[in-house]
Amino acid sequence: MNPIEPIGRLSESWRHCVGTGRLNLALRSDYRESLALVQRDIGFRHIRGHGLLSDDMGVLRMSTVDNSTRYSFTYLDQVFDSYLDLGLRPFVELGFMPSALASGPDTVFWWKGNTTPPRDWDEWAALVRAVLRHLVDRYGLAEVRTWPIEVWNEPNLPGFWKDADQEAYFRLYEVTARTAKDVDAGLQVGGPALSPGSDDWWAPFADFVTARAVPIDFVSRHAYSSGPAQEIPFGTYQELTDPSGLLEQFTAPRLHLAGTALAGLPVHITEFNSSYRPDNPIHDTAYHAAYLAPVLLGGLDLVDSYSYWTFCDVFEEVDIPTSVFHGGFGLLAHRQVPKPTYHLYAFLARMGTWVLERGEDHLVCADDNGRVTVLAWQPVGGTTAPAAAERHRVRLTVPVTGPRAFVRRERVNEHDGNAFAAWRELGRPPSPDARTFDLLRDCARPAVEHRSLAVEGGRVVLDLALARHEVTFVEVLPVTPTEHAGLDDRRLLGVSDDRLVAEHER
Amino acid sequence: MNPIEPIGRLSESWRHCVGTGRLNLALRSDYRESLALVQRDIGFRHIRGHGLLSDDMGVLRMSTVDNSTRYSFTYLDQVFDSYLDLGLRPFVELGFMPSALASGPDTVFWWKGNTTPPRDWDEWAALVRAVLRHLVDRYGLAEVRTWPIEVWNEPNLPGFWKDADQEAYFRLYEVTARTAKDVDAGLQVGGPALSPGSDDWWAPFADFVTARAVPIDFVSRHAYSSGPAQEIPFGTYQELTDPSGLLEQFTAPRLHLAGTALAGLPVHITEFNSSYRPDNPIHDTAYHAAYLAPVLLGGLDLVDSYSYWTFCDVFEEVDIPTSVFHGGFGLLAHRQVPKPTYHLYAFLARMGTWVLERGEDHLVCADDNGRVTVLAWQPVGGTTAPAAAERHRVRLTVPVTGPRAFVRRERVNEHDGNAFAAWRELGRPPSPDARTFDLLRDCARPAVEHRSLAVEGGRVVLDLALARHEVTFVEVLPVTPTEHAGLDDRRLLGVSDDRLVAEHER
Amino acid sequence: MNPIEPIGRLSESWRHCVGTGRLNLALRSDYRESLALVQRDIGFRHIRGHGLLSDDMGVLRMSTVDNSTRYSFTYLDQVFDSYLDLGLRPFVELGFMPSALASGPDTVFWWKGNTTPPRDWDEWAALVRAVLRHLVDRYGLAEVRTWPIEVWNEPNLPGFWKDADQEAYFRLYEVTARTAKDVDAGLQVGGPALSPGSDDWWAPFADFVTARAVPIDFVSRHAYSSGPAQEIPFGTYQELTDPSGLLEQFTAPRLHLAGTALAGLPVHITEFNSSYRPDNPIHDTAYHAAYLAPVLLGGLDLVDSYSYWTFCDVFEEVDIPTSVFHGGFGLLAHRQVPKPTYHLYAFLARMGTWVLERGEDHLVCADDNGRVTVLAWQPVGGTTAPAAAERHRVRLTVPVTGPRAFVRRERVNEHDGNAFAAWRELGRPPSPDARTFDLLRDCARPAVEHRSLAVEGGRVVLDLALARHEVTFVEVLPVTPTEHAGLDDRRLLGVSDDRLVAEHER
Amino acid sequence: MNPIEPIGRLSESWRHCVGTGRLNLALRSDYRESLALVQRDIGFRHIRGHGLLSDDMGVLRMSTVDNSTRYSFTYLDQVFDSYLDLGLRPFVELGFMPSALASGPDTVFWWKGNTTPPRDWDEWAALVRAVLRHLVDRYGLAEVRTWPIEVWNEPNLPGFWKDADQEAYFRLYEVTARTAKDVDAGLQVGGPALSPGSDDWWAPFADFVTARAVPIDFVSRHAYSSGPAQEIPFGTYQELTDPSGLLEQFTAPRLHLAGTALAGLPVHITEFNSSYRPDNPIHDTAYHAAYLAPVLLGGLDLVDSYSYWTFCDVFEEVDIPTSVFHGGFGLLAHRQVPKPTYHLYAFLARMGTWVLERGEDHLVCADDNGRVTVLAWQPVGGTTAPAAAERHRVRLTVPVTGPRAFVRRERVNEHDGNAFAAWRELGRPPSPDARTFDLLRDCARPAVEHRSLAVEGGRVVLDLALARHEVTFVEVLPVTPTEHAGLDDRRLLGVSDDRLVAEHER
Repeated sequence: MNPIEPIGRLSESWRHCVGTGRLNLALRSDYRESLALVQRDIGFRHIRGHGLLSDDMGVLRMSTVDNSTRYSFTYLDQVFDSYLDLGLRPFVELGFMPSALASGPDTVFWWKGNTTPPRDWDEWAALVRAVLRHLVDRYGLAEVRTWPIEVWNEPNLPGFWKDADQEAYFRLYEVTARTAKDVDAGLQVGGPALSPGSDDWWAPFADFVTARAVPIDFVSRHAYSSGPAQEIPFGTYQELTDPSGLLEQFTAPRLHLAGTALAGLPVHITEFNSSYRPDNPIHDTAYHAAYLAPVLLGGLDLVDSYSYWTFCDVFEEVDIPTSVFHGGFGLLAHRQVPKPTYHLYAFLARMGTWVLERGEDHLVCADDNGRVTVLAWQPVGGTTAPAAAERHRVRLTVPVTGPRAFVRRERVNEHDGNAFAAWRELGRPPSPDARTFDLLRDCARPAVEHRSLAVEGGRVVLDLALARHEVTFVEVLPVTPTEHAGLDDRRLLGVSDDRLVAEHER
Repeated sequence: MNPIEPIGRLSESWRHCVGTGRLNLALRSDYRESLALVQRDIGFRHIRGHGLLSDDMGVLRMSTVDNSTRYSFTYLDQVFDSYLDLGLRPFVELGFMPSALASGPDTVFWWKGNTTPPRDWDEWAALVRAVLRHLVDRYGLAEVRTWPIEVWNEPNLPGFWKDADQEAYFRLYEVTARTAKDVDAGLQVGGPALSPGSDDWWAPFADFVTARAVPIDFVSRHAYSSGPAQEIPFGTYQELTDPSGLLEQFTAPRLHLAGTALAGLPVHITEFNSSYRPDNPIHDTAYHAAYLAPVLLGGLDLVDSYSYWTFCDVFEEVDIPTSVFHGGFGLLAHRQVPKPTYHLYAFLARMGTWVLERGEDHLVCADDNGRVTVLAWQPVGGTTAPAAAERHRVRLTVPVTGPRAFVRRERVNEHDGNAFAAWRELGRPPSPDARTFDLLRDCARPAVEHRSLAVEGGRVVLDLALARHEVTFVEVLPVTPTEHAGLDDRRLLGVSDDRLVAEHER
Repeated sequence: MNPIEPIGRLSESWRHCVGTGRLNLALRSDYRESLALVQRDIGFRHIRGHGLLSDDMGVLRMSTVDNSTRYSFTYLDQVFDSYLDLGLRPFVELGFMPSALASGPDTVFWWKGNTTPPRDWDEWAALVRAVLRHLVDRYGLAEVRTWPIEVWNEPNLPGFWKDADQEAYFRLYEVTARTAKDVDAGLQVGGPALSPGSDDWWAPFADFVTARAVPIDFVSRHAYSSGPAQEIPFGTYQELTDPSGLLEQFTAPRLHLAGTALAGLPVHITEFNSSYRPDNPIHDTAYHAAYLAPVLLGGLDLVDSYSYWTFCDVFEEVDIPTSVFHGGFGLLAHRQVPKPTYHLYAFLARMGTWVLERGEDHLVCADDNGRVTVLAWQPVGGTTAPAAAERHRVRLTVPVTGPRAFVRRERVNEHDGNAFAAWRELGRPPSPDARTFDLLRDCARPAVEHRSLAVEGGRVVLDLALARHEVTFVEVLPVTPTEHAGLDDRRLLGVSDDRLVAEHER
Repeated sequence: MNPIEPIGRLSESWRHCVGTGRLNLALRSDYRESLALVQRDIGFRHIRGHGLLSDDMGVLRMSTVDNSTRYSFTYLDQVFDSYLDLGLRPFVELGFMPSALASGPDTVFWWKGNTTPPRDWDEWAALVRAVLRHLVDRYGLAEVRTWPIEVWNEPNLPGFWKDADQEAYFRLYEVTARTAKDVDAGLQVGGPALSPGSDDWWAPFADFVTARAVPIDFVSRHAYSSGPAQEIPFGTYQELTDPSGLLEQFTAPRLHLAGTALAGLPVHITEFNSSYRPDNPIHDTAYHAAYLAPVLLGGLDLVDSYSYWTFCDVFEEVDIPTSVFHGGFGLLAHRQVPKPTYHLYAFLARMGTWVLERGEDHLVCADDNGRVTVLAWQPVGGTTAPAAAERHRVRLTVPVTGPRAFVRRERVNEHDGNAFAAWRELGRPPSPDARTFDLLRDCARPAVEHRSLAVEGGRVVLDLALARHEVTFVEVLPVTPTEHAGLDDRRLLGVSDDRLVAEHER
């Protein structure tokens, strides 16, 4: 149907999953309003966050009267119900350890997730079984079989798993995976959710699950491209590698598992971002959107998913944010203020079905109805790369199935669609009032342009001048003018008068 | 509180009233959604339309069984309830004639409003009494006393009142006014709702009510500035006078009543627009907004109200519109697509409390909290004036109560904030699908710019370049930057790097 | 899964279609809010009404300037868009005649639908073609192929079709059907939409379409069970036959077409009700729900659909209603006040998947999850039947898959769930204020009871005492109590005390 | 206007304030939806809860980089904004201690509010100043002056204030009160928020503030009527005193302050309930509503407010609830399931303006428009009182200004309007699915009855039979029937037939 043969269908791996702050935060109103907006504009398929089993979810309770155990789903149900209501499925991360089952006092984050192994493996298995059975009872087996179940988070780091004890993690993995399969053989279980820099775990992990025939349905790893934290009060700066560094991390699991029994498994990058710090203002910038554009495109066919960490700034790993813009991971700042990277994702969500062309600074897609879309950006290269030019030009020729084309463009850059820029101009108010929040959301809208172009030879030429750090979205719609006898815009004042007609229409 | 002494408070006469298609249309969903939007963004105080007593409102019913009469308010209540729910009060126009009470078959408009005098004056009085008593019962006396009650519409035209019979109208006025005062002496009654070109009615009307001591609380007239219709199929072109011609019409009642007993009464321009035709595409243009800007400002202190005819394109006087843009009077096209003139009104609604400065192409206001607003436009002069230049420059100096200013501007012109322009580029689809309506509403948003300016001597200079036929709204907010130790936008990549900082911030 | 083998799946023919006032009314807010409620609680599949081509839909327009024709879909699109948004598909009725195409001045109803044949058959075909092509363009071929297209309405009555001219109707049918198939062979076309008492049309109709090989995909007829109108001012009383009289009418088309080439076609009862008058208060009563209950159940397997005429009281065939309750056809009175018959439909919508048992005063269904539902009613027999008893008893034994059952019952009768009764108690206010409307909607809720029953032998006994004219809905849910150590409701006051425990729990 | 002279206006002290779980919970969606419902149906004026300054509100932050302090209002603004959006004003409780300012590790509750004095009094004053100044900046001085500011909570208990150190509390009070008045002399400050059983604090407190001329605008105390906890796993039973015991506690402050300089100050009971335990199922019962009815009425003129502790079950003082019904304080259970006590409050909110009559089991009020309302209940007497009878009769004669009366009654008792009863019948599911929550909310609706009564001598007699533990609300509306020629309900079937007319109408 399109005059040009498409390269192929646009993969959905880019929106297979998104990250979230700990699950308890999903009880919040600001969080839910943000997630509803994200789903309206982007439409992720799964969501993954820490803390499903942490004390503030209340899943494992022990009576102070008789020490009896009760599994309780008061909050878990509220959280998962709300996800499903928004068209999202859980990407279940089993962790951290309930205090009542912990073998020690070690915790991670301001919100104190316990990071120690269970003091009793049978009780751990009983907990896993109770949770999964409840999920199957409540949401149905067919549904829960589509939810990946990941065992713990970054066990290779002592901050997340006591002593980064590999043997203990393998046992945790085995007990958990066998319990899950015991609940239902169709449940999908995987791990080991490694942090960057720990690829030495792949070989022993593969050996372990192979040797003991432990069930495994997918493998997972994280990817970040920032250097050491340079802290300031309530904030952090960091150097960034070239964005290609993230794609290299995406490929690592397949590379390291080649030749093992795990070689063919799905690979999920269950967290990725530039900086791994929730207080690095780079996350709030247009630069960040331009930086991630080639990563979103580059990852499409590398892995099964890469989950942006995280969808919004309702997040408390390093304490409560002290300012609306504070360098959080979120696509959205508090109270639904979109950041430039939000628009990058929203643009990609509108790209359509078929890929026509890909380049280092653009992607062209088309729908069956003749609508053509373009995503273009100014490439940036991290800390050591030369500064981006003030302008970046992208010139494309795209097919149009009609005599004319309506071309609409949305721009996000250092000025347009940039709430962070407006916030700085407003004097960086830490806690804006309602009117200023309206203003920020308003300034966060991409700048919009539209025009009419004549189609020649079935194509139009798009000559796009991008401002610094710009990400641009273009929509080209085929137009067939309606005939209307007697209409003449020059006569709007009752006599022929060119001034009432736009220049390109004359 | 403002560094400059204001000239005075901004009068609210510009939004005292707005016009609507016949009242039966107020039952419609599209109408109500449009009115809700208008009230959110503009906030008129009253609303006036024809047809309160016409057959399609069902107020006067006669049984086919026994010829008994019943006054019924099934629809009237729905309509007035909906107005009050939206914060609007009726500006009651009593007309046209119910068929059961008409003295002849003459009608006006596609929807056939009967334009003949009552066949029985007592029955007319009984009808008026029944309607007003019902309103007082349902909405309360205190409320209904705030609703002006206007007797008929343009009785000086034979199309609206059989034979334009002055004597018969005066009788209608007298019977109606006395009946209203009989229901409650505090009800406000007026007329004669003259069309342009009929100022010869003023003297005899004043004589009549004076001589017979007929109650009268206000006088009313209409104003239009277009010449004869130059019809095309399903459309019309017309010449327009200079906008000042409308202001002259506004002043006519006071001029003609000077020296009479009616000299001091409130004057309501109960209809005004450029063209009096609901199929003249001039209503859809940016030119129209620029044309009306000086009228809205000029009328502020001339009369008590001037009611734009009409708030939306749900309107059927010359049959059902055949296309979304069809030259209707509306501030909104069907399905809530704003036209440029809508923005003119919405801008004015955001101007604030105090007038600082007025000029032929601008208005400057301020609020008590230091917010300064500017409305600026390119003056245009009707059909015979020279074509407007491609650019119009407005340079203003405005006071700011802070070290810096955040300046935000919204622009509506031949391209920006102009759904009509986008619709033409889309090939003029008569009946767009939902996606195209979204696109039109999106293209109807004003273009937005913002920046930060340093304040010098308590003032900033605004140098505004307006495009052809532009109406611009500027908001200037005083800014006091928040201190934040350690923050340095140049370090966003971990090292000092100017490229991440907007130019004006360096 | 159910302990009792179901008789079969509950047919959906009862909600395949519903009737509506003329399509122009679908532009109204009250109409749309009512339809949204109906769809939430009942969920019809199609909707059918008159007036698609009547002047107030503006489909066929002729320019007064040059007599050129324009097909316009401004309103049609608004109407059909709104139906699809509510999950409803049009059951397209092609009629009445646009004035510009009419051969005479005859009209039907207060709203003056023209009932004459086209003055030019080619122009009629062109109109049909333009409408159907537009629908296919806008909504897609796959969608429009699911919309039955019915040619005209009750052509056997001179009020609806000039002189009830059979030959002229057959020509209309042929031209229309051939044109539709010309647009797309997959479109579904049918007729002749006969009124009751005209079964003598079936044979000639079958002969005609067979002889000329005219396309036909379904046949249609109407059914009403009331006698002559006994008019009072603004109202009507009528005698009613036994409800079985309606079922006999349902079977008439199959009976009369047996042996013809049309014998196997789907049969749609495109209108049915007790009284055919929109001002007969029987429609507002609980009696009406009890009267129609066996009709809804009896029709399930007789025909492909039977479309209740109409879903709400926004309706103007005999002028504008003068009172909120006025004997309109609607399931809902104005402003979303449910009538008893509304609840009958809403109950049926909740009955579930499988039929377990049917009787003359009940229906028992079950879902796969063990939920059992009962619809029961007191049989009534029309005007000549003996008065219904004050109580009617229904005793049923139903299966339950659990140790206990939660039984919930909703009742609608002369007192409960009966807004009409409350309105009479309120003194029959013709035009209630907002607070009284709230009260009416509140009194329209069915009375609710619930209790817990022990299950014995996999069954519970339901002993239902129905009040006069009652329709009752019962839901039986299997319950497995949760264990909770230490809980003892007798100890709510800190000591054992029976008074805090419901009797059946002791 | 009422035929009976009212006793006086119904005091609003009963809804002057309501209690809430810690302020951080106000960020939650379930909480906000619950509060919105409460405000729609009850309409409290103020809201008071713990934890404004606790770590999870993030108000006082200390940088890990340079130990600098930052006052942050990210969450506080979200919470207070949401209150004001719902028409609620904060009743500000200043506490508990931020960790960064605490002098020790002692905490209260599962959520660990720090209960130690500040380690530095100047820093405490700085914190108080920063908070109050921020509130004044954001919400305006006029607004904040209407917010009572209470210093700490129950300092007389060692669990809430280290060692229940009276001297330290007095210092805290003084520093806080002086700081508040320093911010603005019009701010209202008070204390000491005593728990029951600590009336020996009044004299020294009065002496202290008098001696040192410490500012004080109101005094506050709490009231509970339950005995020692009899714990079971995840629950508690307790004995209850007679409800009059609560009223005695209300009067205690005035009693003990008589003769002191504080004698004339407003008295706020800033918390009250039967049981002080959030896991005592008595809170979920109809008994509880009957128990509190005389307290709500009795308190009207005793004190300035008595704040029900708490509006909903989103509450975590003894860990996360393990079941939807768990004995929480809430008027609403999770997910907006109303408890009987909710209805007691909602009934009281509809009582109207003027008190006509008060009794030990009833209250009669009237509005200016002639609407008469009755609240009636079955008196209950706590643990040691005899069991309530199965029926309780209340017979009242009330005035009606019309020929007939429409009488509508709503009932809440052991069966009706009782979600807790339905939940028990459903087998006590701890974590119901969405459908069961719908069922619970449905069963929580009061049973409704209505009827028409003839008025004799300007009065009707209401003979109300209440079921066990019932609270009943009755609304009596004057009715003037509309005349309608020809209407005769007996003719609904076309002939005269009594069966279609309700008995009382014949």
